[in-house]
Amino acid sequence: MSSSHADTVAGAPTRFPSEVYRDRVARAADLTAQVGLDALIVGPGPDLRYLTGSRADTFERLTALVIPAAGSAATPRLVVARLELASVQDSAIADLEIEVDDWVDGEDPHTRALVELASAPRVAVSDSLPALHVVPFADRIGTTPRLATDVLRELRMIKDDAEIEALRRAGAAIDRVHARMGEWLRPGRTERAVADDIRAAILAEGHTEAAFIIVGSGPHGADPHHEFSDRVIEQDDVVVIDIGGPVEPGYNSDSTRTYAFREPTARIVDAYAALLAAQRASVSAVRPGVSAESIDAAARDPLVAAGLGDQFIHRTGHGIGLSVHEEPYIVGGNALTLRPGMAFSVEPGVYFPGEWGARIEDIVIVTDDGAEAVNTRPHELVIL
Amino acid sequence: MSSSHADTVAGAPTRFPSEVYRDRVARAADLTAQVGLDALIVGPGPDLRYLTGSRADTFERLTALVIPAAGSAATPRLVVARLELASVQDSAIADLEIEVDDWVDGEDPHTRALVELASAPRVAVSDSLPALHVVPFADRIGTTPRLATDVLRELRMIKDDAEIEALRRAGAAIDRVHARMGEWLRPGRTERAVADDIRAAILAEGHTEAAFIIVGSGPHGADPHHEFSDRVIEQDDVVVIDIGGPVEPGYNSDSTRTYAFREPTARIVDAYAALLAAQRASVSAVRPGVSAESIDAAARDPLVAAGLGDQFIHRTGHGIGLSVHEEPYIVGGNALTLRPGMAFSVEPGVYFPGEWGARIEDIVIVTDDGAEAVNTRPHELVIL
Repeated sequence: MSSSHADTVAGAPTRFPSEVYRDRVARAADLTAQVGLDALIVGPGPDLRYLTGSRADTFERLTALVIPAAGSAATPRLVVARLELASVQDSAIADLEIEVDDWVDGEDPHTRALVELASAPRVAVSDSLPALHVVPFADRIGTTPRLATDVLRELRMIKDDAEIEALRRAGAAIDRVHARMGEWLRPGRTERAVADDIRAAILAEGHTEAAFIIVGSGPHGADPHHEFSDRVIEQDDVVVIDIGGPVEPGYNSDSTRTYAFREPTARIVDAYAALLAAQRASVSAVRPGVSAESIDAAARDPLVAAGLGDQFIHRTGHGIGLSVHEEPYIVGGNALTLRPGMAFSVEPGVYFPGEWGARIEDIVIVTDDGAEAVNTRPHELVIL
Repeated sequence: MSSSHADTVAGAPTRFPSEVYRDRVARAADLTAQVGLDALIVGPGPDLRYLTGSRADTFERLTALVIPAAGSAATPRLVVARLELASVQDSAIADLEIEVDDWVDGEDPHTRALVELASAPRVAVSDSLPALHVVPFADRIGTTPRLATDVLRELRMIKDDAEIEALRRAGAAIDRVHARMGEWLRPGRTERAVADDIRAAILAEGHTEAAFIIVGSGPHGADPHHEFSDRVIEQDDVVVIDIGGPVEPGYNSDSTRTYAFREPTARIVDAYAALLAAQRASVSAVRPGVSAESIDAAARDPLVAAGLGDQFIHRTGHGIGLSVHEEPYIVGGNALTLRPGMAFSVEPGVYFPGEWGARIEDIVIVTDDGAEAVNTRPHELVIL
C-alpha cells in the first residue's frame, strides 16, 4: 500500500491558491444574505473542503466554519477543538480572514459557534453535519436549522477552470485504468482478485484512494450497486466495471465500461446496441439551457422504445466533484436548467436479474455550447 | 493492497448470529419505551451495524431502521432505496422480524419511514444521521428529533462476551504490529515510509483496514493528533506510535507505545517514568462502581503532582467497539459509573511543544472486580 500516498498525479496541487477559497467564502456570504439567512454552519466534509481546502474529518468534537451573511457585523469564524487544530492547518484557513476559536474538552462549542450572531438566528447547516451536532444547534437557536444546500449547491455545481482541469485529470487517470483492464480481467479469476488488481492500478495511475470498485460478472452485473465477491468469472460472462476515486486536490473520477471474453449472444448484442445508442443520445443532448430531466429522458426514451425501459432501473446520472455524488442529479422530475461548468455522469444501464447487466458511464462537463466528456475510452462492449 | 480483504484474523466471523441482533433490537425497543419515545430512527453507521450487522454506507438516499417503542402496534421497518438493497443483504435483517420497505428515486422515503407511527411522533435519530435527513424528518414531525444516543449507548457501552472476545482479538492483532516495530522504525527513514510499512502490517496482522496511523517523531510527538509527515526521523528522537483499526466483525484496536533509539536524557527519562506511573495507576483504578472521571483523575493527579499537569492536554480515554471513539468517555466531568463490560482506552500523554511527546495507551475492559487490558506489550519506553 505504499503507493497510496506517493503516486499522485504529477503536478496535481493538494489545494488551490488561497484567493480561490477567499472568493468562495465571500460568495457564500453573499448568497446567505440573498436567501435571508443570518449564517451558514459548515462542518467537515466536501462543503468545508470546497470553501477552505480543509480535509478535517472530525466527528464527536465539533469543527464548524460559521459564515455570517454578507453585510452583517459578524465575521467568519472557525470553531475547532484545540486537539484537532492540526486537521485544519493544511487548509487555506490561515490565509483567510477567518477567526479561529479553538476549544477544549468541557467547553460548549455549539454556543461558541453562535456567539457573534443575533439571538435565535436563522441558520443553515451543511448536509453532512451529523445529528450529534444538528440537535445541539437546534436547541440553542430554538428551531431546526435549514439545509445549507440551497446556498452551497449554487457554488459547488458550477465548476471553475481549475476544477474542470482537475476533473479532466481524474478522467484521464481512470481511463488509463480501463485501458489496462485486459491485464487482470479474465475467466477463472474471482471478482475479488480482479478488484484487488484494479485497486492497485487506481492508486498507481494517480488517485489518492480507490473510492469504489464494482466488478459485476454475469448475474452480478444485474445489480447496479454490487461491489465484488468471490464469484469465479466465467468465459461467457458479461462484466460491468465501474470504478473511480479522488485525484488531488480531491476531484473524483467515475467511469463504467462493460467487458466480455467472446462474442456474446445476439440478444446481448442487441440490448447493448440499444444501451450504447441511449448513452450517446443522452451525452449529445447535454448543453446549457436544457433541463436535467431532459438528459435523463434522452437516455430513457430510446431504451423504452427498444422495450428495455423496465431494465433501466436507476436515474441517468449524478453530479460529481469533491463528492462522488452531488448536485445536479440527472433524474426525472429535476427541472434544474443546465449551465456551463456543471459536471455529472451519464450512465444508463440495462439489467436482467439473474442473468447479466451492462452500463456505460462517462463524466461530462457542460460547455458554452454543448458538453465535454472527460472519459474517452471506447464505448462499445470490450471483447478482451 | 491485495491483503486488505484476504488476511483477516483466522476464524473471525463477519457478523454475530442473528439471535444476537434480534435481542439487541428488542432491547432497543424496550429502552425506547422506557424513555418515553415513540420510535428510534437509525441510519447507516455503527448504531445500525450494532443492531443488525449491516455495513450500509449510503448518504443521499435514505436508509433508516425505524424501531417503534415496545408495546406499540407498529413493527420495526427498514426503509432503503431499492438500488441499495444489496447494502443490507449481508446483514441479519432478513432473519429478523423487520419489514423491508424499498423505495425508488422520486418517492418520499422520510414520510414512508414514519408511516406506522402516530402523527407528530416523539422520535430520536442516530448520532451519525446527516443533516440531509435530520431536517426532512424534523419537517415531517414538526419538531427537531432527539438524539438516540440516550437509548443506544445503554446497549453499546456494555459489551457482551462475543464483543469482548472480538476486542481481545483486535488487541492481540495490534500488539503483533507493535512487536514488529523494529523492522520499520529507525533513524533516516521518513515518518511516511514507516507509516506505509505499519499500514501493510496492520492489514497483514488481521485488520480489515488501517483506520489511523500516528508516527509522531521528535517535535511531532508533541501533537497528539499528528498523523505522519515527510520528516526524516533522527537518532535522538522520541517517537509516538498510535495505531489501530477494525478486526472482523468490526471491533477496533487502538494502542500507543513510545519508542527511542538510544538512552534518552534524564529529563525525558523522568517525565516518561511519571507518565508510566500515571498510566498504571489509571488502569489499576478501573473497576465497577467507580466513575469515569475518577479514572481520568487517577491518571491526571500524579502527573499534576509531578509538575506535568500542563503537559497532559487531553482526556484520559474514550470508549471503543464498533467505533474507535464512543461512550464512555474517560474525562473530567463525566460522573458515569463504570459497569462490567465497558471497554475504553487509558492513554495519558505528556507533550512538550516543539520538542517531544510520549503517550501510553491500552484498551481495558471492566470486569466483575477490576479490569482486563487487551494490550500486553511492555509499557516502558522501547529502545529499538
